Amino acid sequence: MGPHPAVADVRLAVRRALAGFPAGRPALVACSGGADSVALAAALAFEVAGSGRPAGLVTVDHNLQPGSGEQAARVLALGRELGLDPVLAESVRVEPGGGPEAAARTARYRVLDRFVPANLVLLGHTADDQAETVLLGLGRGSGPRSIAGMRPVSGGYLRPLLNLRRHQTEAACEALDLPWWHDPYNSDPRYGRVRLRREVLPLLEDVLAGGVVEALARTAEQLRDDQDALDELAERALVAARTDADSTGGLAVDALHTQPDAILGRVLKSWAERGGTGALTAAHVRELRRLIRNWHGQAAIDLPGGYRAIRASGTLNLISPADNDANWE
Amino acid sequence: MGPHPAVADVRLAVRRALAGFPAGRPALVACSGGADSVALAAALAFEVAGSGRPAGLVTVDHNLQPGSGEQAARVLALGRELGLDPVLAESVRVEPGGGPEAAARTARYRVLDRFVPANLVLLGHTADDQAETVLLGLGRGSGPRSIAGMRPVSGGYLRPLLNLRRHQTEAACEALDLPWWHDPYNSDPRYGRVRLRREVLPLLEDVLAGGVVEALARTAEQLRDDQDALDELAERALVAARTDADSTGGLAVDALHTQPDAILGRVLKSWAERGGTGALTAAHVRELRRLIRNWHGQAAIDLPGGYRAIRASGTLNLISPADNDANWE
Repeated sequence: MGPHPAVADVRLAVRRALAGFPAGRPALVACSGGADSVALAAALAFEVAGSGRPAGLVTVDHNLQPGSGEQAARVLALGRELGLDPVLAESVRVEPGGGPEAAARTARYRVLDRFVPANLVLLGHTADDQAETVLLGLGRGSGPRSIAGMRPVSGGYLRPLLNLRRHQTEAACEALDLPWWHDPYNSDPRYGRVRLRREVLPLLEDVLAGGVVEALARTAEQLRDDQDALDELAERALVAARTDADSTGGLAVDALHTQPDAILGRVLKSWAERGGTGALTAAHVRELRRLIRNWHGQAAIDLPGGYRAIRASGTLNLISPADNDANWE
Repeated sequence: MGPHPAVADVRLAVRRALAGFPAGRPALVACSGGADSVALAAALAFEVAGSGRPAGLVTVDHNLQPGSGEQAARVLALGRELGLDPVLAESVRVEPGGGPEAAARTARYRVLDRFVPANLVLLGHTADDQAETVLLGLGRGSGPRSIAGMRPVSGGYLRPLLNLRRHQTEAACEALDLPWWHDPYNSDPRYGRVRLRREVLPLLEDVLAGGVVEALARTAEQLRDDQDALDELAERALVAARTDADSTGGLAVDALHTQPDAILGRVLKSWAERGGTGALTAAHVRELRRLIRNWHGQAAIDLPGGYRAIRASGTLNLISPADNDANWE
């Protein structure tokens, strides 16, 4: 008798995710003790057996509630039972400020980032997490890149379970008789993501007669391809338009005229931000675009950080605050 | 004393929408009798006064409920009072099949299409309608183009109110003491769109602490720019890769290699569909893309309508069913 279908699905997903990487590169599963990452840890242990790939586990103790140390110890014990080695607990201090979910995530990735690229770090995000991310990004208006969701491969991070549902990871844990724990933060209705999961997505599933999580995940994938293409083409156009190789150099207006708005906007934003301005708003980008498209001798455009952009003799130039000061002397 | 702010907002939106079109081109407001299109009709009448632009009203009687003829007569009377001329009622028969909302929309646009491009046809869609469209498209997984929503200008159709909220059009009607009617189809919970409006969007507003409708409308706008850019670049790439100007000609593989996936996919889809295949699925496009990216002497790919695509001597060729038959003789 073969493994339970859910177990087989999780293992296949892990096998495919690892296939592209040399067996000598160690894999580390980031495990909170929830069903997603416990199923992932078990599949990783199963798949690396005999492959020669070292495979370990890391759990992050956020120190946000009493008993979090005991929970980390339980996860380490589970990792050892699964045969993962090393098993590591990393204790972090979550800095106040921003939303509590964002702060915990920042602290967590600060730890995990230390393990890449030497290790592949496997994360347990499922299609349900992806759907929540897409809907959050959409509801907050954070733009197409944000609703394109999380990537299956990003640097040394792998998300093998992005096409599986959360209930499949729970079924896999049950079939393997593995313990898993509910993260109290996953049921606290003060968190937007928790209410999206528990209230909004089920209602949307009901109204649209099902398939919403899969639909959101599918759309995120297409959007990611689209955003990648636009970023790549913008990068090519930026390189082609630079008047010199230096990142502080100007842009040749003639090289940009024929670009569609979405590419031109990305070129101008990258150019200014890499020149040192800090993040541009949509309004800044619109003004910069008008220097290319609707040129009627405008004055310099003010940008963040005291920078200014000015068009002269067919070239767009970025003037740094230091240059500005020099002009005053 | 100036007009009520909501009245001023609707008028300004109409003025801006009409500004780009010669005053001799007549405008026709499509009016259901709901607050959105009544406010739009009033603003149109106000804005064209003295401009020399002829402005009329058309209402579509879908014949879906008893008394729909009386409702059409009331809308015509209102149009006359506003000074619009001509005022037209068009009676349609909604064909069964598909969803009831989609069927009514098809019947409606079949009528309205007859008035463009000779007339500008003004539609009363608001930011609320746009948000519903985006969320519907997203929940159904109908792809990035669908979640990019409705366009403010499309052929002869104008949607001046896409950046205004529905409650603003209601406030405008009240301030002008204009009657408006609830469309019974706008409150029938059997329709997905109605439940999105009444249940899902308010819940999402609550969970994300507001601004969701505006966020969805803003994202739709950015996505539209992105999709337009990708379509335009794909069109240029298709023209550049054709081995002859004929739409049945082949594609030079070398001209396509450097295109990002999202562009290459669009090129191949347009090429096949214009060659006569009918709509390609994502799986078809993936297979076609492999003929360019992962060439190892594959056999011909089967496409809809009995067409096949084959790569030979560095050219991708589309073989029609007739060509196939010829091969059999």
